[in-house]
Amino acid sequence: MKNENNNFSKLNKLDKPQGNNSLKIISLGGFASVTANMFVYETSRDILIVDCGVGFPEEEMMGVDLVIPDISYLNDKKEKIRAVILSHGHDDHIGGLPYILPQLPKNLPVYAPKWALALSQMKLEEFGIFANLNEIDQKTSLTLGDFRLEFVKVTHSIPDTYHILLKTPIGNFYHAPDFKLDLIPVLGQPADQVRIQELGRQGITCLLSDSLGAERPGFTPAEAKLIEMFESEIKTCSGNFFVTTISSNISRLKQAIDVSVRHGRKVVPVGRSIEKNLELADKLKYLALPKEVMLTKKQVKDIPQGKLTYLVAGSQGQIGSALDRIVAGEVDSVKIKKGDKVIFSTDYIPGNETAIRRLIDNIYRLGAEVVYSDIHDHIHVSGHGSQGDLGKLMELIKPKYFLPIGGNYRNLVNYKKLAISRGFKENQVILADGGMVVEFFSDGSVKTNKKIETRQVMVDALGVGDVGNVVLRDRKILSEEGIVVIVLPIDQSSHTLDGEPEIVTRGFIYIKENLEFLKQTKKFTSQVIEKTKGKRMDYRFVRNKVQEELEEFFFKSTGRRPMVLPVVVEV
Amino acid sequence: MKNENNNFSKLNKLDKPQGNNSLKIISLGGFASVTANMFVYETSRDILIVDCGVGFPEEEMMGVDLVIPDISYLNDKKEKIRAVILSHGHDDHIGGLPYILPQLPKNLPVYAPKWALALSQMKLEEFGIFANLNEIDQKTSLTLGDFRLEFVKVTHSIPDTYHILLKTPIGNFYHAPDFKLDLIPVLGQPADQVRIQELGRQGITCLLSDSLGAERPGFTPAEAKLIEMFESEIKTCSGNFFVTTISSNISRLKQAIDVSVRHGRKVVPVGRSIEKNLELADKLKYLALPKEVMLTKKQVKDIPQGKLTYLVAGSQGQIGSALDRIVAGEVDSVKIKKGDKVIFSTDYIPGNETAIRRLIDNIYRLGAEVVYSDIHDHIHVSGHGSQGDLGKLMELIKPKYFLPIGGNYRNLVNYKKLAISRGFKENQVILADGGMVVEFFSDGSVKTNKKIETRQVMVDALGVGDVGNVVLRDRKILSEEGIVVIVLPIDQSSHTLDGEPEIVTRGFIYIKENLEFLKQTKKFTSQVIEKTKGKRMDYRFVRNKVQEELEEFFFKSTGRRPMVLPVVVEV
Repeated sequence: MKNENNNFSKLNKLDKPQGNNSLKIISLGGFASVTANMFVYETSRDILIVDCGVGFPEEEMMGVDLVIPDISYLNDKKEKIRAVILSHGHDDHIGGLPYILPQLPKNLPVYAPKWALALSQMKLEEFGIFANLNEIDQKTSLTLGDFRLEFVKVTHSIPDTYHILLKTPIGNFYHAPDFKLDLIPVLGQPADQVRIQELGRQGITCLLSDSLGAERPGFTPAEAKLIEMFESEIKTCSGNFFVTTISSNISRLKQAIDVSVRHGRKVVPVGRSIEKNLELADKLKYLALPKEVMLTKKQVKDIPQGKLTYLVAGSQGQIGSALDRIVAGEVDSVKIKKGDKVIFSTDYIPGNETAIRRLIDNIYRLGAEVVYSDIHDHIHVSGHGSQGDLGKLMELIKPKYFLPIGGNYRNLVNYKKLAISRGFKENQVILADGGMVVEFFSDGSVKTNKKIETRQVMVDALGVGDVGNVVLRDRKILSEEGIVVIVLPIDQSSHTLDGEPEIVTRGFIYIKENLEFLKQTKKFTSQVIEKTKGKRMDYRFVRNKVQEELEEFFFKSTGRRPMVLPVVVEV
Repeated sequence: MKNENNNFSKLNKLDKPQGNNSLKIISLGGFASVTANMFVYETSRDILIVDCGVGFPEEEMMGVDLVIPDISYLNDKKEKIRAVILSHGHDDHIGGLPYILPQLPKNLPVYAPKWALALSQMKLEEFGIFANLNEIDQKTSLTLGDFRLEFVKVTHSIPDTYHILLKTPIGNFYHAPDFKLDLIPVLGQPADQVRIQELGRQGITCLLSDSLGAERPGFTPAEAKLIEMFESEIKTCSGNFFVTTISSNISRLKQAIDVSVRHGRKVVPVGRSIEKNLELADKLKYLALPKEVMLTKKQVKDIPQGKLTYLVAGSQGQIGSALDRIVAGEVDSVKIKKGDKVIFSTDYIPGNETAIRRLIDNIYRLGAEVVYSDIHDHIHVSGHGSQGDLGKLMELIKPKYFLPIGGNYRNLVNYKKLAISRGFKENQVILADGGMVVEFFSDGSVKTNKKIETRQVMVDALGVGDVGNVVLRDRKILSEEGIVVIVLPIDQSSHTLDGEPEIVTRGFIYIKENLEFLKQTKKFTSQVIEKTKGKRMDYRFVRNKVQEELEEFFFKSTGRRPMVLPVVVEV
């Protein structure tokens, strides 16, 4: 993609030797991904990392807890890394720190807004990791090697979300992860659009922008809009009022608390994540919890019907979450019953739809009312900008290039369409995918012909990266077909079976009802070994032969293909 | 639920001895379920079965292909069964036949509309099952023991969908599974609302009604509405035009063919299910395929760009379906490329959202346009009625009782709210769940205090019902944590280890990178057995001890809990 737009000029470059310089942008979590955000900005001398998030395992990643970005690209460049910058406190932007920070240079500075910093600190402490954490705000200006940084506060579904301006020898880059342009935010101030426009006027080589909402027309509604919904729902609730939402959405929780106070209800947070987030938000003065109405779930005994609001974690139907356990009747002090109302003030995160709907069914079974997005249009607002918000940022910044991030590939494509509909040219938008290296040059050109390997590094309990495709493939077979282990006691000298084969099976068939079948299997195995006699005498041959023949035997008799594992024991 | 509405009267009863008679309605697939439809209508002398469908495995049912209704309730009542009636040809209404029919009395008559009959026949032939299939239509009137039946043709997303009026000694029942009131259907006639009203005037004890759309306000739009969408999308498509939808939706396919003909395109069905359905629809004269434009995928070579429409199976993102394989580049003769457009004219069936969205991303990666419900509101219409349709049927029938079916529990609750909003009383609506027995008496009362066991019978390859909860629980552990089999060669006389334990593991850790860890595990196991020496000498004790200690050992060292299976081999 050669620069064809020669009247673009006056990039606000720093006074640095230029030579053959370039700036590379790489997404270690892979471009065209919503989560596992981790971006590398690299000049010949310096590297800056923006965000360090986790991803969530896909359906096929059985037993995997988390996915983290692959930092192997940085392995031979660690001395170039100047800092990690965090844009905001969502897990897909900070959750990778405990796994990745220990692999980066010791004492590497991490810069973060106050709220993200507090959450990161809590997270790192759980892992016993000390980090060099530094707070930034709107007034911060940093010089880190080739990079000079400024920060722009914007609005999102978590407090303290920032955009980052990176001035580099190659040009200025405006990094705009998750945001919306909420003009009347519940907490804090709206984004300063005048300042954004000023930064744009300094000349921006590339705008890296959130693209998740690029399919949605209009502007994303303001968070404050939801107060009307809360009002009308609480008014018609004779019993206890339950609100579930993403626990980090402090503004949403504040609105639920405010409306409860107005209606004379006490408020009870339930679930570790909500309790922790509210406590921290109060301590850091993001909100002032009305102490006189806040109760713990142990203190509700004498509160009359209809005078309680519960703020409950588990809006995604997660097994074992507070809401799941309450609905299952496992929480002694909190019951849902007729007259109560449960508000799902949340998006269905892709992949969770079935679990959420099942939870809703079960709440209805308890006789309560449920309000959720299938029956109510205005119960949740997204934290991500729609076409209006995204287009507005395009116009304020007027960059030379666009690099949509934070979306699936279809969102990037729709972001591109949006840019074109706003009068930008098709070749101004870079559609990056996977491990693509987006390289900007001082003559204004950009190349995308290099590619790095980015695997998904899987975290399974204490193991980071030790679960790979082989293990996952085995888990998949095990999960669908089960396993049959057949132990073959083989006489060392005669190489024949000394006794009966032993069979252990799990996940294949119900053993108690299939004793006869297992007997047949043993007999069949003995025959197979009998037949190999005098052929080749190494155990590998015996094992392979038994495995092969048993696989066929099982498929013919059951239609299934369990994993067959013969074990030879010399006796 | 005692009858409190005594002015309801004149049930059109048959001339039968009454006595202590009752009519039971049971859902063998469980009430509050969308799929696995199979209803039992039972008097003291006779049983009628309505529909015989399959369900689809939930996420936890690993490796399970299908779920079928549990017919164990019928085991001691088989001589009472008079017939199976099928309402329409969707798999969740007919797909259970090959598994269930062989367990019912030989030569039991099956009554079905022409289209459902043809599909059933095809399905049964694949299994080599002969069945006594009989065609019904609007004029059919059947007397089967205590039951006299009439049929009402309605509209749905598959041709030939019927409602069933069952006249019984206890009263008349109107069985209304999946339907919408499409006034301008693409194929056939609209439902005859005058006749429905007449049937209602004969007095209906209970209306069993589709409830799936009870959350949606208004009427479900007519199928024919989509022609505008097809027109505007095909007009702006310079390349090949791809349409994917549920393969049994003949009306949808007809519209895609019609618009293609008008725009001078040849039409190519791709995928076994679509090819088969179109061929059958043509043969049975549901539509007349324009032979001169229909091509197979082998015949497209010389057709110029922009002159083809592909009708492709796989709208739910199913792995291995035609669309999945085309997108993966595995179908030689069909490629998707820049300029092409792919229309997802379909619902996202719950649970498939992630797979569908991933497929959409990959089509965008090929450079084609994609039109899907996230970016286009009018690309699909449901086959199920919304509040308008459902409410209209309520008013035409004016039953004494309502029994919502074909929905999840939340849909039943919303159906009840709808009935109340239309002026019916709360106690007229029966919310049935699971194995509830809904029993109607000749005095007009209804009881719901009995319950039968209904398990979900799982079909896994050739096995029907042999995969139960134990096997599934094992599969779940195996899938998330893997398995470690440890073979212990134990000396028969000394009860000590004779040689090294042998370890086989799958899905737990990557073996090649963890040889040292496996060595430690063997050593640890030897120590455990050493410690048991002189304690209790039975192998069960040794096995349990090894299992327990290894589980702890693994959890401490890896954080994981693989299934640990010690096998003792006597040497």
